[in-house]
Amino acid sequence: MLGNFSYHNPTKLYFGEESLGFLKQELANYGKNVLVVYGGGSIKKNGLYQEIMEILKGCGKNVAEVSGVMPNPTADKLREGVRIARENNSDFILAVGGGSVCDYSKAVSVSVNCDDDPWDKYYIRFEEPQCDIIPVGCVLTMAGTGSEMNGGAVITNHEQHLKIGHVFGDNVMPRFSILNPKYTMTLPVYQMVAGIYDIMNHICEQYFSGQDDNTSDYISEGLMKGLIHASRIAVKDPQDYEARSNIMWTATWALNTLISRGKSTDWMVHMLGQAVGAYTDATHGMTLAAVSLPYYRYIMPYGVKKFARFATQVWDIPSQGKTDEQLAQQGLDAMENWMKELGLVMKISELGATEEMIEGIADATIILNGGYKVLDRDEVVKILKASM
Amino acid sequence: MLGNFSYHNPTKLYFGEESLGFLKQELANYGKNVLVVYGGGSIKKNGLYQEIMEILKGCGKNVAEVSGVMPNPTADKLREGVRIARENNSDFILAVGGGSVCDYSKAVSVSVNCDDDPWDKYYIRFEEPQCDIIPVGCVLTMAGTGSEMNGGAVITNHEQHLKIGHVFGDNVMPRFSILNPKYTMTLPVYQMVAGIYDIMNHICEQYFSGQDDNTSDYISEGLMKGLIHASRIAVKDPQDYEARSNIMWTATWALNTLISRGKSTDWMVHMLGQAVGAYTDATHGMTLAAVSLPYYRYIMPYGVKKFARFATQVWDIPSQGKTDEQLAQQGLDAMENWMKELGLVMKISELGATEEMIEGIADATIILNGGYKVLDRDEVVKILKASM
Repeated sequence: MLGNFSYHNPTKLYFGEESLGFLKQELANYGKNVLVVYGGGSIKKNGLYQEIMEILKGCGKNVAEVSGVMPNPTADKLREGVRIARENNSDFILAVGGGSVCDYSKAVSVSVNCDDDPWDKYYIRFEEPQCDIIPVGCVLTMAGTGSEMNGGAVITNHEQHLKIGHVFGDNVMPRFSILNPKYTMTLPVYQMVAGIYDIMNHICEQYFSGQDDNTSDYISEGLMKGLIHASRIAVKDPQDYEARSNIMWTATWALNTLISRGKSTDWMVHMLGQAVGAYTDATHGMTLAAVSLPYYRYIMPYGVKKFARFATQVWDIPSQGKTDEQLAQQGLDAMENWMKELGLVMKISELGATEEMIEGIADATIILNGGYKVLDRDEVVKILKASM
Repeated sequence: MLGNFSYHNPTKLYFGEESLGFLKQELANYGKNVLVVYGGGSIKKNGLYQEIMEILKGCGKNVAEVSGVMPNPTADKLREGVRIARENNSDFILAVGGGSVCDYSKAVSVSVNCDDDPWDKYYIRFEEPQCDIIPVGCVLTMAGTGSEMNGGAVITNHEQHLKIGHVFGDNVMPRFSILNPKYTMTLPVYQMVAGIYDIMNHICEQYFSGQDDNTSDYISEGLMKGLIHASRIAVKDPQDYEARSNIMWTATWALNTLISRGKSTDWMVHMLGQAVGAYTDATHGMTLAAVSLPYYRYIMPYGVKKFARFATQVWDIPSQGKTDEQLAQQGLDAMENWMKELGLVMKISELGATEEMIEGIADATIILNGGYKVLDRDEVVKILKASM
């Protein structure tokens, strides 16, 4: 059943090879002091940085920069961004990069006008912003997180071994996002497939929860089928624009709140993966891939009907003469085969996790209660060991 | 391939049995002079009118009314609404009803501050509004048109035998819509199934076009599967809240621009159905139902691959050992069986169309070029005759 909910997603999206052409008209709606946020500098190599700087200058903007935003942006880096934004009286933030850059920019946007330490306020005490929020726009260069059309922002604190996401409201969502699939095509295949699994898992986290029959799950099945199809093409030919554009668009809709409307959701794979990430600093999508099957095989008996539906509706496995358990098993086997076909990392040990870290990772795992089985700490340890 | 496109849908949605509770907070964002628009008065019988009036009074609003908006709102009625809105200096329009009331309210909203005749300006000359647009909010009582989250407004001119839709931009979309599935449950079954077919056809119009592989078609398949499933439950038990809520939510996403992003679309069934409606004043969804199969069977050879995909992905027809033609045929047969199961009207003669009207209906049919076959006038006549 669809429960009570609201839906509001005001982000304006420009999609396609010509989408950067809309940046100029969007910038006209915002202030003069622009803070440009980006990562390790790949945008300087491929020319995107120069192109954007020219557009900004053409609009008469004063430009400040935060560069070097890392794949798992840290609390310290967040504090640095807040400082630079304050020093430059930034009234607009332009994120140019992947989900980390976009997450980071949103975390800065809710912190600049707020006196508290942002890590303590948003990630330890989980408060909501009361201060003015600086508007954020995004030029996306990697498909995966969906950060371009949601209010989420994940930040990592290495000293505390914590990697935590805060999902803010629609006032923190990017005002606009520019999605050009071409920008994703210079990415290494490792990052591409990690992004693809991130997308798949976003859908699974929202799909594998609840017994009710609802529209959201049907949309999720469509998105998963499209993603699986496109990913098989992209992994053979990363330059296939059709496949890359479908992957990019699916990423946006996998995590912009639509497919969770009116239903419960799980998110335990992300809790496990983020705890692994806090210890290893590994690529986000790979941490999810490495813990997924041990987790899903463990909870499957508690949600066997949904896993059987997953098998028939997503993986086209014929149901005739099979029990729900058999189907559920075959669905997860099909997912495993697909994951290996993409070349995903299937063990957390390959990401740098060691036996000695297991207890710490278990401590860092936030246990949620939306899935088919609420785990206890022993079960978390068991799943982490099975992921080694 | 996903082409270049933009997506922006700012409508805020409140869904569920408690959704009317959000009206008060939304009204606070708009002006004092509210124009309440509704239809034949069923909202007075079920108490919704009284409930809304109390909320409006509690907010200190000045209320004017346009009642008697008909299922196919006319150009004359539109002019009446514009006059009433001007006389009352209305600065907000609250539509309470189904798609017709919502369409009508949007047509009024773009006409109040404009000197031209709205029919001539928007429906004959197809101009865009240059004047100030009055914001519209919506309390929806029928699922089908998707008008609650789009910029479309269909108006009928009986003297000219024309029923025409104008799709306005995102500034004309309702600012908010309140969707309570309970409100749809007092509707006669005839109207419910007409609405269900309207939803199905909105998806088909966007699905049956183009040869490319794209995310939009995968989402469409999910929406169709969910709709077919829920409709079978609802037609047996119209009081099934789960089914009615899924139908209502599917209606919104079937026509809020999402599933047409990056692809071509058809809309010829609507052109044929609207021309039938201009002559017969029949229920919109039934006019679509009555022309659909003759149209799809006629164009099927020109888009056989997509129709074969429709069979396997939407109707779960096994593909083994079958040609695309056979699959395509079986998919349309499955749709026909489902339509009969719902009790839809399958002939335009049952809606009041006569042999003598055929030439006139063909003249009133606007021919579009997004489908698998661009029809000529003789083909339109042929399809209309096959629909008798």
